[in-house]
Amino acid sequence: MKYNTILVKESLGVITVTFNRLSQRNSINRAFIKELNEVLDKAEQDTQCRIVILEGQNDVFCTGMDFEEAAMFNVQDKKDDSMSFLSQYMKAIKRFTLTPKVIISKIEGQVMAGGVGLAAASDLVIATPRVQISLSEALWGLLPAMVLPYLIRRVGYQKAYSMTLTTLPISAQEAFDIHLVDEVSEEPDRSIQYLSQRLFRLEQSTIKNIKSYFRSMWLITDEMEKGAISESFQMMSDPKVRENIENYVKYKKFPWDDRK
Amino acid sequence: MKYNTILVKESLGVITVTFNRLSQRNSINRAFIKELNEVLDKAEQDTQCRIVILEGQNDVFCTGMDFEEAAMFNVQDKKDDSMSFLSQYMKAIKRFTLTPKVIISKIEGQVMAGGVGLAAASDLVIATPRVQISLSEALWGLLPAMVLPYLIRRVGYQKAYSMTLTTLPISAQEAFDIHLVDEVSEEPDRSIQYLSQRLFRLEQSTIKNIKSYFRSMWLITDEMEKGAISESFQMMSDPKVRENIENYVKYKKFPWDDRK
Amino acid sequence: MKYNTILVKESLGVITVTFNRLSQRNSINRAFIKELNEVLDKAEQDTQCRIVILEGQNDVFCTGMDFEEAAMFNVQDKKDDSMSFLSQYMKAIKRFTLTPKVIISKIEGQVMAGGVGLAAASDLVIATPRVQISLSEALWGLLPAMVLPYLIRRVGYQKAYSMTLTTLPISAQEAFDIHLVDEVSEEPDRSIQYLSQRLFRLEQSTIKNIKSYFRSMWLITDEMEKGAISESFQMMSDPKVRENIENYVKYKKFPWDDRK
Repeated sequence: MKYNTILVKESLGVITVTFNRLSQRNSINRAFIKELNEVLDKAEQDTQCRIVILEGQNDVFCTGMDFEEAAMFNVQDKKDDSMSFLSQYMKAIKRFTLTPKVIISKIEGQVMAGGVGLAAASDLVIATPRVQISLSEALWGLLPAMVLPYLIRRVGYQKAYSMTLTTLPISAQEAFDIHLVDEVSEEPDRSIQYLSQRLFRLEQSTIKNIKSYFRSMWLITDEMEKGAISESFQMMSDPKVRENIENYVKYKKFPWDDRK
Repeated sequence: MKYNTILVKESLGVITVTFNRLSQRNSINRAFIKELNEVLDKAEQDTQCRIVILEGQNDVFCTGMDFEEAAMFNVQDKKDDSMSFLSQYMKAIKRFTLTPKVIISKIEGQVMAGGVGLAAASDLVIATPRVQISLSEALWGLLPAMVLPYLIRRVGYQKAYSMTLTTLPISAQEAFDIHLVDEVSEEPDRSIQYLSQRLFRLEQSTIKNIKSYFRSMWLITDEMEKGAISESFQMMSDPKVRENIENYVKYKKFPWDDRK
Repeated sequence: MKYNTILVKESLGVITVTFNRLSQRNSINRAFIKELNEVLDKAEQDTQCRIVILEGQNDVFCTGMDFEEAAMFNVQDKKDDSMSFLSQYMKAIKRFTLTPKVIISKIEGQVMAGGVGLAAASDLVIATPRVQISLSEALWGLLPAMVLPYLIRRVGYQKAYSMTLTTLPISAQEAFDIHLVDEVSEEPDRSIQYLSQRLFRLEQSTIKNIKSYFRSMWLITDEMEKGAISESFQMMSDPKVRENIENYVKYKKFPWDDRK
C-alpha cells in the first residue's frame, strides 16, 4: 500500500505511523484522515499487530485541520464532502478508543487543535519535554467540538475548558500533571518499548473488552459524537469564521488584527 | 447605579466587582446576591465589557451565607422569600457559566462555603499564596448543595468529597493541584492583565458558544440545579440545623461544643 | 462475635478491621467478604461508632480475589453461589459509600485488583510511602469491572484506564497525585487521629446526607453496579480465563508463559 501523507513502518507487532505533511506542518486534510483510517483497517486485519504508534516529525506532531482544506467548506455542492471529512476525523479518533490494538501517541514539538484530539483519544501518550500543546480554535471563532469529548475524559472539565478559553499552550510537564500526557521522557522510544513488553502480555480480546467497558463507564455516547460533527460543520459554515479563515489563507491576516 | 454590598469599577472592557460587606466578613445576604445579579445584567448590556473580575478585600474573599440571614429561614410566611434567596445564588453562579463575558475570581484570604461556589463557577480563578479555602457546611449539619455541581466539575469527585467531609481548609497550592485555582500568583493583577490580552482576541459570541457547548459535555442539568435549591431549602428548614445556626448567631456557640 | 478472616478491635467510636488471611496474602474469599459485610452491620447498629478503619498486615493490604475461590467458578450447580460472592463484594464497597460511618482505608504494601476497590470506595485513604497499587486483572484476561466505577470516580477516567491497560503498579506518591490516596504519611495512625477529631464533630445523619447527595452528583447508578456484577460473572465463566486461573492455581503458570 502506498500512502501520500503518512509513512508506515511495521516491525514485530508494532505499526508506526509517521505524519508526513511537513510543508503543511502536519495539518489534517482529507487525504491524511483517509489514510489514517486505512492504516487502522490494516492494523485491525493484521492479527500480529498489537500496537500502533503515531508520531510527527521535525518538531511538529500535528497542527489540526488544514486551513486550505477548511477554506473550501460549505461550498453548497460540497456539503456532503465537508461533512464526510469531519465524520472521518471523528471516526478515526473513536476507533482509537475501541480497537483491540493499543494506540500510542508519541508527541514532540507542536500539538494543536485537531492534533490534540489525536493525542487525547490515544490509549497512551508519551511526550518529550519539548512539547507544546494548544487549542487555538477560539481565536478563529471556532471551538474544538470533536476534540472535547475525549479531552474532557482525559483531563477533566476545567483544564479542557481553560485550554479552550485562553488558547494558551501548555508544556509537557503541565500536560503530564493534568493527565493529557501519561509519561514525559527524553527517550520516548525506550519508554514505549518498556510499555510494549507489558502490553504484549494481554490478549487482544481483553484490550477490546477493556475499551468497550470503559466507554460504558463515561459520558461519551454516539449521540454526543454525532452532535460534535454537526456543531463543527455549523461553525465551519459560519460566514464570520469563513472570512477569518480566508483572510488567513489569502493574506496571513489574523482575526484580531482589526480589533482594538 | 448605586450598590450597598459591592463596589463596582469599570475600565477598558473590564468590570471589577469588589465585595464590600467587611463587617460581615463578605458573607452573602439577599442584598449582596441581588446586586451581584444586577452587575451581571449591567455587564451583559454593555457590549464593550469583556471581563468581570470578582474580588474580596482585607483578606476575605467571601465566607458564604450570612448566618443572620439564615436565621430568618423557614419562617412560615417567608418561604417564598427564602427560596428566592437560594434561587438567586444558584442563578448567579449559573450565569457565570453561560454569559458571553469571562468571569475571573481573584481570591485572597478566606474563601468559605458559598464563597467557594462563586470561585468554582468562575471561568478562571487566580489566587494569591495567602488563600484558605474550606467547605464548613457539614459542621452545621448542612451540605454545600448548590456549590457541589460546579465544584465537582472543576476538581473531580473525590477532592470535592474530602473537602465536604473533613471540612478542612486547603491552601493555594493544594487548590491549584486539584484545579480549583487556575494560577497562583503573588501579582494576580498582572496575571489577569496577561490573560485579558489573550481573552480580548475572542469574539463574545465565541465565548458564549464555548460555554454552552461545554455545558452539554458535562453532568450538570437544569434539574440538578433545581434539586440543589430544594435540597438547600430543606436543610435550612431542618429544626436541628436552625438550632445550630441560632445558637451561633445568639451565643457564638458551636454545634460540637455540647458533644463528647 | 467471632471472625475467621479479619480481626476486629473497638475503641472510642472507632472500629478497626485488620485483614487476616496472611497465608493467602489477604485475598478476598467468600468468608472474608461475608465477614466484612457483618462488620459493617455491626458498625451500623452501634450508634457510638463513627469511623471504620480498614487495614492489612505484614505489608499486604489486600491482593484481590482469591484464585482458589475463583477456580471453583461457573461449576454449573454453583452459579448462584458464584453470583452471590460477586454481589457481596459489590454490596460491601457500595455500603462504604452510603453508610453514616466514615470508612478509612489505611494502606501499606500490596494493594491489588479487588483490594484497590476496597480503597477506592473508602471515604478517605491514608497510605504509607511503602504502598504499591496495581490492577493486574487484564493479565488474566479479566477486567476490574466492579472496581472501576469507584476508581474512575476517584481518579478520573484516564488514570483508571492506564492502570487497567498497563497493569503497572503505582507508588504512594503517584496514587496521591491522582487522588487515589488522600494523604501519604509515615505515621498513618497519627493522621487518622487528627482526621477523627474533625470527623467526630459531624452528626452521623449529616454524613449520610453528604454521601447520598454526592451519589446523585455522579455517574454511578444501581444499574451500572448490577452490570458490573454480570460482567464479572461472564468473564469469570469464560473458558480461557478459567484455564488461565487453573493453570496458575495448579502449576503456578502465567498466561503469557506460552506466548511468543
